[in-house]
Amino acid sequence: MTKSLAIQEFLDGTAPPTPCLVIDLDLVRDNYLALRAAMPATRIYYAVKANPTPEVIRLLVGLDAGFDVASPAEITLCLANGADPATLSYGSTIKKAADIAFAHEHGVSLFTTDSIGDVEHIAAHAPGAGVCCRVVVNPPGAATPLGRKFGCAEDMAGDLLTRAAELGLRSRGVSFHVGSQQTDPAAWRTGIEQAARIGTRLAAAGIDLDLINLGGGLPAAYLTAVPAPERYAAAIDACVAEHFGADPPATMIEPGRAIVATAGLIRSEVVLVARKSAADQHRWVYLDVGRYGGLAETENEAIAYRMVTRFDGTEDGPVILAGPTCDGDDVLYQRTPYRLPMRLAAGDHVDILAAGAYTASYSSVAFNGFAPLPTYCVGQGGA
Amino acid sequence: MTKSLAIQEFLDGTAPPTPCLVIDLDLVRDNYLALRAAMPATRIYYAVKANPTPEVIRLLVGLDAGFDVASPAEITLCLANGADPATLSYGSTIKKAADIAFAHEHGVSLFTTDSIGDVEHIAAHAPGAGVCCRVVVNPPGAATPLGRKFGCAEDMAGDLLTRAAELGLRSRGVSFHVGSQQTDPAAWRTGIEQAARIGTRLAAAGIDLDLINLGGGLPAAYLTAVPAPERYAAAIDACVAEHFGADPPATMIEPGRAIVATAGLIRSEVVLVARKSAADQHRWVYLDVGRYGGLAETENEAIAYRMVTRFDGTEDGPVILAGPTCDGDDVLYQRTPYRLPMRLAAGDHVDILAAGAYTASYSSVAFNGFAPLPTYCVGQGGA
Repeated sequence: MTKSLAIQEFLDGTAPPTPCLVIDLDLVRDNYLALRAAMPATRIYYAVKANPTPEVIRLLVGLDAGFDVASPAEITLCLANGADPATLSYGSTIKKAADIAFAHEHGVSLFTTDSIGDVEHIAAHAPGAGVCCRVVVNPPGAATPLGRKFGCAEDMAGDLLTRAAELGLRSRGVSFHVGSQQTDPAAWRTGIEQAARIGTRLAAAGIDLDLINLGGGLPAAYLTAVPAPERYAAAIDACVAEHFGADPPATMIEPGRAIVATAGLIRSEVVLVARKSAADQHRWVYLDVGRYGGLAETENEAIAYRMVTRFDGTEDGPVILAGPTCDGDDVLYQRTPYRLPMRLAAGDHVDILAAGAYTASYSSVAFNGFAPLPTYCVGQGGA
Repeated sequence: MTKSLAIQEFLDGTAPPTPCLVIDLDLVRDNYLALRAAMPATRIYYAVKANPTPEVIRLLVGLDAGFDVASPAEITLCLANGADPATLSYGSTIKKAADIAFAHEHGVSLFTTDSIGDVEHIAAHAPGAGVCCRVVVNPPGAATPLGRKFGCAEDMAGDLLTRAAELGLRSRGVSFHVGSQQTDPAAWRTGIEQAARIGTRLAAAGIDLDLINLGGGLPAAYLTAVPAPERYAAAIDACVAEHFGADPPATMIEPGRAIVATAGLIRSEVVLVARKSAADQHRWVYLDVGRYGGLAETENEAIAYRMVTRFDGTEDGPVILAGPTCDGDDVLYQRTPYRLPMRLAAGDHVDILAAGAYTASYSSVAFNGFAPLPTYCVGQGGA
């Protein structure tokens, strides 16, 4: 992964205050089109939460993407940027009755659910809507596994889809999420198998499921390469064919990271380089961006970003990287071995690559008085 | 800890949209005055980062508090609300040269440091300012220990204070932080001992330190009671007397949590109550506030808040508590045993007590499209 030329030109020409996120819309488009080419039969719903910048939404609307939304504000954002509500999927299983009503009033007709309470809310406030039921899967291979917060057991999913149909909803299919930054293309197998078994059970009850929601999890290349989209597509297609035969249901997928991560760069500035004692082998390098300024995914060092400085290639040494707040947990990397140039000093820039996903929108509104991370867009973006 | 009457009246009368934080300014005043009464000889600098609500700042200005600030924005906030810059201490050791210059231009004349780079920046951009050097101490007893991000070794602190004096700064003393929510009044001992040794060393070099900065760490009562301020004062006074004798340096302390935590309540709404399988013993209770909406200190379940519902006292059962975002880590409590009423349902309120510190300012600006936690103030506040 190298730095985008358009981003570099913007930084050189504009010298924006740091920290900031710069998104190259051309790379967003390239990532989206590569994914679509790799999975031509699967409908892509961009996970808005990954990066809700209006320019990104507008670009993807123009490329015929669908949108996975998590709140009324994300619905409003998509519609304001030209999305057809029929292309929106309310992917959060945790939604207020009022938010379901809001979605329904604005034309959203596909919802993900995983509990009887939510099914009843959807039936009451979005009558006739389509629903997918999320089952819990926890395959290995994810940088940030999702645990048990979302999804229900397979049996319960069958019950919920049955109940949804009784309540007048359109039971569409099964949804699952293999965990974020999933590096194993085979990780979708368990979910697809559950979808097949649930489909068989419901077909016997006269309910035909016509959709599999493959969720998110497609990875981005950070410090190391990840399998190409084609490998995920091949593994998923083979598994669907194996379990559904000649007449498989439609598939949809909800990538966020895979579309925007590599399109973004965070420019930060070194606030301070320090040693804690005369015997310290490593330096502490404090940046003006940290866990509360956009790098939330460095929690537990789950995502290790590539850092670029103008001194790369000169003598380097081990560092601990930390953010600028008073919070002792605002340390980016102390176990992941990072080395930075010995010449790096306060005031120098550190550019954080592939930082377009799950960064700016996570920023604290004002912790320690620091403003949220601003976003700039460069590139043509259009088709 | 019971709910503030003024907060309850506000909630009943106004029924604000949830989630929201409500601060009772009378309780802020009471907490501050109790602390001042317990530690009459110690100057109190309120840690603005704990809760930067303008009304809180104005109230504390009126009560003659000092302010521990971490950024230019916090300086601006304090000055805009009537603080005298002579009552501000720039407590962050991680600050840009430009931020030091900003502070200096606005009259701030006391800085905390822990590295040679920062000392040089202060000398260059805030000539003649007072400095305290932070040493690292990690006593047990803190809910969230601060690790090694801040502070330096004792030897280095002596070197830095010596160097600061050479550079024309006023070397004031030693600073340390015993870790947040520190429940052991004896935890200040190590830091005071280091301050004494460093003081002796510097006195021999002709530099008289006249201040000990006792940092933050004073706790608030969450689920369990904590020692009264008088016990902390007694332990600290005894230790200072033991090590400094009849002519001790002045002391300052930087409480945040102890002043605002119990003065605040977060009102949240149950979004959903769910079981994940028919066999589930516990319910999942999803609130409309979570780790990214203000409850950042539930990370690793460090702070366990008390929850209040209108059904308290009726039959209850075990729950896992989670926030509303798509993030699998947005789970508040799954190891800490919480029980909530069986009757609790979507739409009911859950009030989170003692939530006035380190909540609203941590909120994500827009993660999942959710707005940051708004703050309302009630009570007279004035003296």
